[in-house]
Amino acid sequence: MPLAQRLNNVETSAIRELFKLLGKPGIISFAGGFPDSAMFDVAGIQAAVDRALKDEPGAALQYGATEGYQPLREQLAAFMQAKGAKDVAADQLIVTTGSQQALDLLGKCLVDPGSTAIVEGPTFLATIQCFRLYGADLISAPIDGEGVQVDALERLIVQHRPRFVYLIPTFGNPSGAMLSLERRKRVLELAVKYQTLIIEDDPYGDLYFDAPPPPSLLALSEHVPGSRDWLVHCGSLSKVLSPGLRVGWMVAPPALLAKATMCKQFSDAHTSTFAQATAAQYLKSGAMPATLAHVRQVYGARARVMGEALRGELGEAIEFVPPQGGLFVWARLTGAGGKIQDGNEFAKRAIAEGVAFVPGTPFYCANPDPSTLRLSFATVGEDKIREGIGRLAKALG
Amino acid sequence: MPLAQRLNNVETSAIRELFKLLGKPGIISFAGGFPDSAMFDVAGIQAAVDRALKDEPGAALQYGATEGYQPLREQLAAFMQAKGAKDVAADQLIVTTGSQQALDLLGKCLVDPGSTAIVEGPTFLATIQCFRLYGADLISAPIDGEGVQVDALERLIVQHRPRFVYLIPTFGNPSGAMLSLERRKRVLELAVKYQTLIIEDDPYGDLYFDAPPPPSLLALSEHVPGSRDWLVHCGSLSKVLSPGLRVGWMVAPPALLAKATMCKQFSDAHTSTFAQATAAQYLKSGAMPATLAHVRQVYGARARVMGEALRGELGEAIEFVPPQGGLFVWARLTGAGGKIQDGNEFAKRAIAEGVAFVPGTPFYCANPDPSTLRLSFATVGEDKIREGIGRLAKALG
Repeated sequence: MPLAQRLNNVETSAIRELFKLLGKPGIISFAGGFPDSAMFDVAGIQAAVDRALKDEPGAALQYGATEGYQPLREQLAAFMQAKGAKDVAADQLIVTTGSQQALDLLGKCLVDPGSTAIVEGPTFLATIQCFRLYGADLISAPIDGEGVQVDALERLIVQHRPRFVYLIPTFGNPSGAMLSLERRKRVLELAVKYQTLIIEDDPYGDLYFDAPPPPSLLALSEHVPGSRDWLVHCGSLSKVLSPGLRVGWMVAPPALLAKATMCKQFSDAHTSTFAQATAAQYLKSGAMPATLAHVRQVYGARARVMGEALRGELGEAIEFVPPQGGLFVWARLTGAGGKIQDGNEFAKRAIAEGVAFVPGTPFYCANPDPSTLRLSFATVGEDKIREGIGRLAKALG
Repeated sequence: MPLAQRLNNVETSAIRELFKLLGKPGIISFAGGFPDSAMFDVAGIQAAVDRALKDEPGAALQYGATEGYQPLREQLAAFMQAKGAKDVAADQLIVTTGSQQALDLLGKCLVDPGSTAIVEGPTFLATIQCFRLYGADLISAPIDGEGVQVDALERLIVQHRPRFVYLIPTFGNPSGAMLSLERRKRVLELAVKYQTLIIEDDPYGDLYFDAPPPPSLLALSEHVPGSRDWLVHCGSLSKVLSPGLRVGWMVAPPALLAKATMCKQFSDAHTSTFAQATAAQYLKSGAMPATLAHVRQVYGARARVMGEALRGELGEAIEFVPPQGGLFVWARLTGAGGKIQDGNEFAKRAIAEGVAFVPGTPFYCANPDPSTLRLSFATVGEDKIREGIGRLAKALG
């Protein structure tokens, strides 16, 4: 049967093939991009759903407004306010079915076949695929340890006049990088100067290990006149509370938010009110700060262990900026000492040694650096991290 | 900021404006398209989520497979098998975020700008909008009290060679019509003869009042050789258990199902595992048959009361086929006795009298019949139905 041409723009994730190999017994996997199930506050979520079904069973089980369940919108606005985005109100955001849906709605609203958009190189794989499904022509902006290189970004904006620039400024996937405060301000100034929409995807910002990161672009936009008109902010409870709820949200300028809401109406009508009412009760219960403190401590310790082990076991054959938050170490094989420098080949050898990670190539929309790789420390205990990095050293030869 | 051209294809639901008026105190609303919250088995759903969080908290709260949570896929396959689709296996379906998402995925997979598709006239409003967002050129196939007119449908297929034909064969929204067994067979034969995909949307089939309806196209396809290769079936728990779970599903030929799964991966990654695990436990508990028996009985009684009241109060000024299931009475103003014959004008007068319904015009993708209207009996008690129809008679003048 004839299928839509847009399907020719993408392939099923290259990572999927790799993931099939992860069923191998005894494998230690740094390949995940998800939080540790053991961190989930099951008792807190049980209490929240009990409260939702007791206090508001009709609302929790009935159809709801496409924009989102109002008590949740209010809780999310308060959540962002507490993180410095002081002037964000409930009606400036819509709830999405995970932040993945926010990306899909943005693609639907903003991308015509052949539209140009700028993303980081590397960036989140499902973003690349999502925007390409709508026909986007993606341009790769280079990053370093402080996130996107703003001078290069400005040149690309001038050259391509993109529909938007998509960034994960804080502990990005896969880069783990944290955009500096200085660069954050410049990004917002570029948005105003070139009247170019910036999409800030921020699922990891709460997962800092020591000091909090600089304010989100959303929080900073208050101080850069006019920038809020060119800013979209996507948030998510997936990495901090539970991905299974599929609760994300999007703040956007009113006209765009209205169009995204219309598209959402015809995409899934609304996000599960059952999940939304549960999330609202959870946030209302006041349990979130303790939950966040716990995951920060655990992930921070694991990140440090992984960093030390990589340094100790692989030495000069690998380089990376130790992450200050998030779920990932982004590393580059240097080839020092004649060691292997191809991430894809290394991934195969690693699987043979009983350890998995994701090679960096699929995270680039163009000009991949084949020497890169992504390692997640989030779901592996400290001893297993040491053991896994030991296996990695063995695979390196 | 420049928006995607596809947004020009649709407007926000015309019904929305009407719905804003429903806040008027004391109004009796037949305008809804949703089940009665009072029917929800809150205790059963509470037990199901308790069980899910006790038995499988990791799976219920973690990311899940895009195809759906495997125990739910198995329960849904068994649910369909029990309704006569004996050969449907779990891996032939994917779970969707409500059946609205199934429509969105089908639009994404099948519709190029300018692609032709056939829908019933009238049909589900959000289907029209959803497919138009992808650029579909929709053709309206006429219906009568037995559903789509198959001779006319065949002529339209021959003339337009559509990408697909979308039908709600059982107790359709808004028509309430039940496609006859004879016509069901012919639809499947047309699919094979013209190699044309048929989409069967079936959210209402379980809501029959007396005798069960004829088998779904899915169940019948077993008896029409080759027809399964040209059939998509969309199901939903929204009308029978809870819309707030946002649990729907789609059965489709393998190649199309694989593409829809890929699109879903970039739309919302997966449907809430929290909701899926809860739905799976609910189905597993064996509570569904009693729940269905209860809603059938309540809705059936309300439908009869509405039918009798319409007949008694509005007499020859209105005509309709009494529904044998579902949520809706679809009626036509005859103009008999010089009474009003325009549904939109009648809706305004009705609101003034304190009763609401949806005029039929928005449910047509082309050539609307302005004398039509949709009345839902699902959410109004029997006495209030009589009172509301009394008000309607008053509005008729």
